[in-house]
Amino acid sequence: MNPVKIAIMGYGNLGRGVELALRQNPDLKLTTFFTRRDPDTLKTLTPDVPVYHVDKALEMKDEIDVMIICGGSATDLPKQSPMYAKYFNIVDSFDTHANIPQHFDAVDASAMEGNKVALISAGWDPGMFSLQRLLCNCVLPQGHDYTFWGKGVSQGHSDAIRRVEGVQDAKQYTVPVQSALDKVRAGENPEFTTRQKHTRECFVVAKEGADKEKIKNEIINMPNYFADYDTTVTFITQEELDRDHGGIPHGGFVMRSGVTGVNGEMKQMIEYSLKLDSNPEFTASVLVCCARAVNRMNKEGMKGCKTIFDVPPAYFSPKSGAQLRKELL
Amino acid sequence: MNPVKIAIMGYGNLGRGVELALRQNPDLKLTTFFTRRDPDTLKTLTPDVPVYHVDKALEMKDEIDVMIICGGSATDLPKQSPMYAKYFNIVDSFDTHANIPQHFDAVDASAMEGNKVALISAGWDPGMFSLQRLLCNCVLPQGHDYTFWGKGVSQGHSDAIRRVEGVQDAKQYTVPVQSALDKVRAGENPEFTTRQKHTRECFVVAKEGADKEKIKNEIINMPNYFADYDTTVTFITQEELDRDHGGIPHGGFVMRSGVTGVNGEMKQMIEYSLKLDSNPEFTASVLVCCARAVNRMNKEGMKGCKTIFDVPPAYFSPKSGAQLRKELL
Repeated sequence: MNPVKIAIMGYGNLGRGVELALRQNPDLKLTTFFTRRDPDTLKTLTPDVPVYHVDKALEMKDEIDVMIICGGSATDLPKQSPMYAKYFNIVDSFDTHANIPQHFDAVDASAMEGNKVALISAGWDPGMFSLQRLLCNCVLPQGHDYTFWGKGVSQGHSDAIRRVEGVQDAKQYTVPVQSALDKVRAGENPEFTTRQKHTRECFVVAKEGADKEKIKNEIINMPNYFADYDTTVTFITQEELDRDHGGIPHGGFVMRSGVTGVNGEMKQMIEYSLKLDSNPEFTASVLVCCARAVNRMNKEGMKGCKTIFDVPPAYFSPKSGAQLRKELL
Repeated sequence: MNPVKIAIMGYGNLGRGVELALRQNPDLKLTTFFTRRDPDTLKTLTPDVPVYHVDKALEMKDEIDVMIICGGSATDLPKQSPMYAKYFNIVDSFDTHANIPQHFDAVDASAMEGNKVALISAGWDPGMFSLQRLLCNCVLPQGHDYTFWGKGVSQGHSDAIRRVEGVQDAKQYTVPVQSALDKVRAGENPEFTTRQKHTRECFVVAKEGADKEKIKNEIINMPNYFADYDTTVTFITQEELDRDHGGIPHGGFVMRSGVTGVNGEMKQMIEYSLKLDSNPEFTASVLVCCARAVNRMNKEGMKGCKTIFDVPPAYFSPKSGAQLRKELL
């Protein structure tokens, strides 16, 4: 079997995660990096794989089976995914939930035109969490579902703190409220306010001479980001931040509390959880098995934009149907 | 939209569960019961739906979109599923793991001949648990996975106890060992013996004058069923058994403890769990959403035997792709 030829577009935390995840999947072969930087300056973990400038990408469209686009959802993916889906099978991790329908339409038009398959919004949320939400809603149509995030680092919230005057550096953790999790597990079907589901823990390095009380007030009252939450702010040194808060852990819970029976007398509880030391590496691992599925779907003649909802799960695996039935069913 | 016409073949706990689950899914309509008993003696919860003897089934093949076969895996399904898959789209819950490949082949031959779709081994294990095992293996190829069952009633083990001389009635619970779950969650990647993963709790009603010590010894030393486990036997009255152990709860855990990174330095943990007040009603709920998928697959021209690994998850839902992307992705 010839391995599937994979290109990585963009080399930040996610691109590096894809590079590492591909090492765990021998049926997939990393053949190309694309970067917007000067290719000669890019130091990858796999020096024998060539690095090209993005301007060379279209010239190489026949040498690549799937391109995994590792850009950000704010400005990169809305441009890159529709642009490349015409020429390549692609996978992206577009995660701005509210804009998914619009992104889907743009990518679909492009992939249909190019007879390619594009899988968008892969990762864990959107991604594996979405798939769990779908499955548990289908199995238990009468019920309530809940998604909790954390404990984990929110990059967006950490960035927001760093923009506060007097802040040198910061890390923000989203933390699910234990008593809220317990209420759901007990089948109480609670209705939560934003404040009741998650707390926000901020570790902040203040610049020398900065007014810490003012920083704290500005953070906890920040609209959208912190005002609706119980937020704690802890000032620490840069050394402590680097030593104790250097990782990018995350995780969370998808739960469905449903009922069956003549009068809903039987409680049926489904819970899915992730506890991740590295958020970008886990996301990357999902992208990689999606790339395998995308290649197979395109080889079978499919085209257009897909999501994780559209993929027969066996397509994520390198094993045959008979093997899967024997080993995992 | 015309609702999908569903027939239930066999009316025990599972068939009744399907009957109830269909009430939660207005796009699916229960139109027919088939039974091996005298149809006039069958008291269903839905008296306006006609009950026919199984001998009438083939005559009605054009009036039914999907038949959900609710027989047992030991003797019913190995005959019924291949027999009916030639004439009907079917769903079954065949759960003898070791014989799935053989069952698949028999059903596939029949469904291919009849241009029908047959989905076998739906439920929670095999079924939702299998799907979770597949997904977590694909996302984290380097790791260990674990399936724990319980706390829940094992019908097979309860039956085995009832066959012991001097036993009037019995109920057996399979219980996962808490310290084993904790070791997995801690990422220790333990290797377990059978005894270390589950205990077995037996509640037994002895016949009058029976030798309880002898019964207990016979149970705990029973090969295959109990000898490899730490088993507790508690003697209670029939009244206590009926009052406190009348339900059929079950559940369990699928966990994968994987690693990513340059040298596997990042631990990534996935956990899926079910806590079910009613095992047969949950299984039935899975069968019902599989019936929706089977109908759609057949309408799209597919045929042959499928498992939950082969179904695009969106097919389990009555909602459109656009709705699902908007609401659940």
